[in-house]
Amino acid sequence: MRKVTFGVANSLDNFIARRDGAVDWLIWSDEAAAVMKDFWQKIDTILLGRKTYEIALAQSKGQKNPYPHIKTYVFSRTLKDAADAEIISENAAEFVRDLKQQDGKEICVMGGGDFAKTLFEAGLIDEIGFNIHPVLLGQGIPLFLEMNSQIDLELIESTQFKNGCVYVLYRVKNNP
Amino acid sequence: MRKVTFGVANSLDNFIARRDGAVDWLIWSDEAAAVMKDFWQKIDTILLGRKTYEIALAQSKGQKNPYPHIKTYVFSRTLKDAADAEIISENAAEFVRDLKQQDGKEICVMGGGDFAKTLFEAGLIDEIGFNIHPVLLGQGIPLFLEMNSQIDLELIESTQFKNGCVYVLYRVKNNP
Repeated sequence: MRKVTFGVANSLDNFIARRDGAVDWLIWSDEAAAVMKDFWQKIDTILLGRKTYEIALAQSKGQKNPYPHIKTYVFSRTLKDAADAEIISENAAEFVRDLKQQDGKEICVMGGGDFAKTLFEAGLIDEIGFNIHPVLLGQGIPLFLEMNSQIDLELIESTQFKNGCVYVLYRVKNNP
Repeated sequence: MRKVTFGVANSLDNFIARRDGAVDWLIWSDEAAAVMKDFWQKIDTILLGRKTYEIALAQSKGQKNPYPHIKTYVFSRTLKDAADAEIISENAAEFVRDLKQQDGKEICVMGGGDFAKTLFEAGLIDEIGFNIHPVLLGQGIPLFLEMNSQIDLELIESTQFKNGCVYVLYRVKNNP
């Protein structure tokens, strides 16, 4: 079964973007780039919530798909067109459960809020990787909404970057 | 001026207790104990919100004050009696601002929610120390409420404990 990793950059108070979607507070580094380079080689599929897709698209300087060489699914009930990304408008959990059974490399989930909640509650996330940024944004788009059950984690690694980010990677322990 | 450190144990999704105040998910370790032992020697004053005080009291096995040898202030508009802890019922920020100017050792703030928000927004927190536990509680008493301004942090250290907790310590960069 294909591994699904939920990966985001977050503020210490668990926002993934400002309220207007801005991610100007993100700080890049060679260390983060090295982690991402390894990660990109393991995956062939990206799953995004609609808000995260729009944020990524805004960051991608005119490209129609923020991840042009990777199969990209955008989960949205309202979005009508997403260039060469595929829109999944219903039964997100069922779709991802099916995708995990198919042949392929690993799968990356980006985003937070409703989309993350749906996949966590359905027990579809295998690993969590956060690049925790040294900032309290105070308000913004939340990484987590309330969930209906506890998820126990096992820390795989934590790495302190020179720029003050802390990268943490966890395995989900109690998926059904 | 006395340093004020905001220190808590939190879940990865930033809860400090279950909705009913339970902290059964906290995991102790010699490593956390060593950090706390150093910390206790630097402080002589503890500031608590009411909910955190009640949680600490429930954990303290019949003691009337969960921190009997340290000057303890509980911030609450409703609490009437807190044994030998002192209740501060109004103007929390003003009280803490004054306290920082007095002679004494460092000050520890425990808790989250409204109390933390008040002190952060008033620019009274100098350092933040979190013991991030490897769990998503899903719901509970939140560490952070929305705040009206961004707070930039400088990472002082991050330490991975054997039990999967990650201890992070930050300095607040942009206090007034």
